[in-house]
Amino acid sequence: MNVPFVSFLPMERELDSDLRNAFNRVFTRSWYIEGQEDAAFEKAFSAFCGTKYCIGVGNGLDALMLILKALDIGEGDEVIVPSNTYIATALAVTYVGAKPVFVEPEMETFNIDPSRIEAAVTARTKAIMPVHLYGRACDMDPIMSIAAKYSLRIIEDCAQAHGATYKGRKVGTFGDAAGFSFYPGKNLGALGDAGAVVTDNEDIAVKVRALGNYGSDYKYHHIYKGNNSRLDELQAAFLSAKLPHLERMNAARRQIADRYLSEIKNPAVILPLVSEEYVPVWHIFGIRCSRRDELEKHLSSRGITTNKHYPIPMHLQECYRDLGFSEGDFPIAEEISRTELSLPMFYGMTDAEVQAVISAVNDFA
Amino acid sequence: MNVPFVSFLPMERELDSDLRNAFNRVFTRSWYIEGQEDAAFEKAFSAFCGTKYCIGVGNGLDALMLILKALDIGEGDEVIVPSNTYIATALAVTYVGAKPVFVEPEMETFNIDPSRIEAAVTARTKAIMPVHLYGRACDMDPIMSIAAKYSLRIIEDCAQAHGATYKGRKVGTFGDAAGFSFYPGKNLGALGDAGAVVTDNEDIAVKVRALGNYGSDYKYHHIYKGNNSRLDELQAAFLSAKLPHLERMNAARRQIADRYLSEIKNPAVILPLVSEEYVPVWHIFGIRCSRRDELEKHLSSRGITTNKHYPIPMHLQECYRDLGFSEGDFPIAEEISRTELSLPMFYGMTDAEVQAVISAVNDFA
Ligand SMILES: Cc1ncc(COP(=O)(O)O)c(/C=N/[C@@H]2[C@@H](O)[C@@H](OP(=O)(O)OP(=O)(O)OC[C@H]3O[C@@H](n4cc(C)c(=O)[nH]c4=O)C[C@@H]3O)O[C@H](C)[C@H]2O)c1O
Ligand SMILES: Cc1ncc(COP(=O)(O)O)c(/C=N/[C@@H]2[C@@H](O)[C@@H](OP(=O)(O)OP(=O)(O)OC[C@H]3O[C@@H](n4cc(C)c(=O)[nH]c4=O)C[C@@H]3O)O[C@H](C)[C@H]2O)c1O
Repeated sequence: MNVPFVSFLPMERELDSDLRNAFNRVFTRSWYIEGQEDAAFEKAFSAFCGTKYCIGVGNGLDALMLILKALDIGEGDEVIVPSNTYIATALAVTYVGAKPVFVEPEMETFNIDPSRIEAAVTARTKAIMPVHLYGRACDMDPIMSIAAKYSLRIIEDCAQAHGATYKGRKVGTFGDAAGFSFYPGKNLGALGDAGAVVTDNEDIAVKVRALGNYGSDYKYHHIYKGNNSRLDELQAAFLSAKLPHLERMNAARRQIADRYLSEIKNPAVILPLVSEEYVPVWHIFGIRCSRRDELEKHLSSRGITTNKHYPIPMHLQECYRDLGFSEGDFPIAEEISRTELSLPMFYGMTDAEVQAVISAVNDFA
Repeated sequence: MNVPFVSFLPMERELDSDLRNAFNRVFTRSWYIEGQEDAAFEKAFSAFCGTKYCIGVGNGLDALMLILKALDIGEGDEVIVPSNTYIATALAVTYVGAKPVFVEPEMETFNIDPSRIEAAVTARTKAIMPVHLYGRACDMDPIMSIAAKYSLRIIEDCAQAHGATYKGRKVGTFGDAAGFSFYPGKNLGALGDAGAVVTDNEDIAVKVRALGNYGSDYKYHHIYKGNNSRLDELQAAFLSAKLPHLERMNAARRQIADRYLSEIKNPAVILPLVSEEYVPVWHIFGIRCSRRDELEKHLSSRGITTNKHYPIPMHLQECYRDLGFSEGDFPIAEEISRTELSLPMFYGMTDAEVQAVISAVNDFA
């Protein structure tokens, strides 16, 4: 049996007519940028998150970058980011001229280790950017305390965690603002690039909207040196069609995860940690294995496609050579990059597909 | 009779089934980013322009910014831009940390005045960014000579000039690279934000593509501090549906322009200059009138919607206060901002609509 790493088809066939209607509605109206679909989705998504404001933007990287700009973080400033994340988190920091300062994750949760943050704070530190990686919230209580102690901003990177909770509270509601990605493969994905900023802070909301619209507060009147980063009406309409199903689809991912967690039994494999205070949304189901590349091959020979998030840690990427790091500087991130393997995980995976993955992993010797 | 400033409906009803098929094709394939639609459109658009390479990107501002980044233009550098353009031209320069240096346009053509460029060149100047405004090419021969003399790069801003020619040669083929916008209202418009870079230079092409894809040359391998700026498959498919009709639709705009030019007869109104060596595509038909705001009101009372491109020149925008300019510093740009009025201009304007505009302008006293 062939099991893809991800397929959008079960979801798209289920929502087929809603998605087609979304296209028809926008196309018939002939209005494609900054219209009622964007406004309606922003309202619905801020209600979903439990924040006062939502601003649709072009993608997840831009969401983070626009928040940083809105907070006047730039040249000479430092922003703490996890050493284990998708590189876009750090690129947003670089983009505004600030310096990303990497902090190691906890091996068990893959997320930034709160106990290591304080040592990275300097006089230049302006913000911490916790990334709720793979769909699991960071341990926010200690992170919030450190931020309070040093008067740092918190910018949550929620690109992989739409709807995940920590102690009953949704990610995106802890910090000053949060960035979401709606890249097609995300738990809530558009049919193209898209993203959003959510916040309770009106100043940030107003500034982010202007910054993403050529820096203008009204047409032809430019108060900031802005960018162009907006949520297309079409993508907003597609997202509005999907949003009402997000909780249910996240729950379906949790069912798959629960089976993986209880039925994968292989001493060569370390399963991801679960704990009561966290409700993860399993954007990625990442296991660890010291013979990861062999396991990958083995699964592939059984028709199962896997992925690695991420094979090269940021501090060893060519683009960050100027930060002067070398192998060994972030051993936990490096270990994750060597051992992490992402199993198939998507809404609509059949029981047989889940079973095939479990059996194949268990058969690995 | 009500005449809108722009309506997409005649074009969209004519291409209705092609545009719907484009959506169906992409949606059925369930592949939304970096796929065959993008590749096909890039091939078709570079063939249309007559350049070796085309890279789809997120929007027109990003196109210019990515070119500047690819050319390593940034902090400490100066880029010459016209004082009369949409602010996105200058924002792209600001965005990479360089300084936009404004050069006045010719009053008659609205475009950068080649005879004033040399005086603006300093030891820091790295590039000239000619903007083919309103659909009319800049006077490229003298601009190319200056660039050659001082070893400056030329980055063409073609956001308003898809298909326009200068001495028989298409815009976008003169410089090191050119940026296009496919904002919905452009002569070639997507159904959302979109843009492209065209160039004959392989190094620029390869670098722009990586820079717009998180700086990666291949998946998870990041060689530059990149951005996220890509052309969605859906938008590429819509653009591919429209591109075969662009020349014909540009010709239809020229017919409208020809009627305006020959039938508008009002001493209070200055018509745009036409000259043999230029084939404009009339993205905007801009007339000038010293009593512009009265004329606007008069036309509005006759049901005719007009627009102003642009009411506030860049050097007087709040966001560029740090450049230290004040009123009077760029008198020609200021005069244009006070006197320019854009008449209705779009594919599918009926003869009666054109007539209504002409009569209303001629009746203005
Ligand atoms: C020289 C130069 N360089 C770089 C750029 C940057 O490119 P960009 O990043 O792609 O925007 C521009 C952009 N240029 C344009 C700029 O010229 C200006 O254009 P504009 O004529 O003011 O546009 P508009 O009034 O929003 O739309 C034109 C008409 O179209 C109608 N319409 C509009 C929409 C969106 C719709 O869905 N349905 C409609 O019916 C309403 C209007 O009557 O503002 C835009 C946002 C920019 O993309 C430029 O001119
Ligand atoms: C923490 C964090 N912060 C900021 C960001 C930045 O957000 P962004 O700017 O919106 O990308 C990210 C982005 N994160 C993701 C990143 O995690 C990575 O995700 P990935 O799992 O490698 O994604 P992928 O392999 O391209 O797609 C996943 C699967 O989906 C299938 N697919 C894909 C597409 C596009 C399709 O159309 N049809 C398909 O069937 C193929 C794959 O099997 O790469 C993406 C480009 C980023 O958006 C992040 O994780």
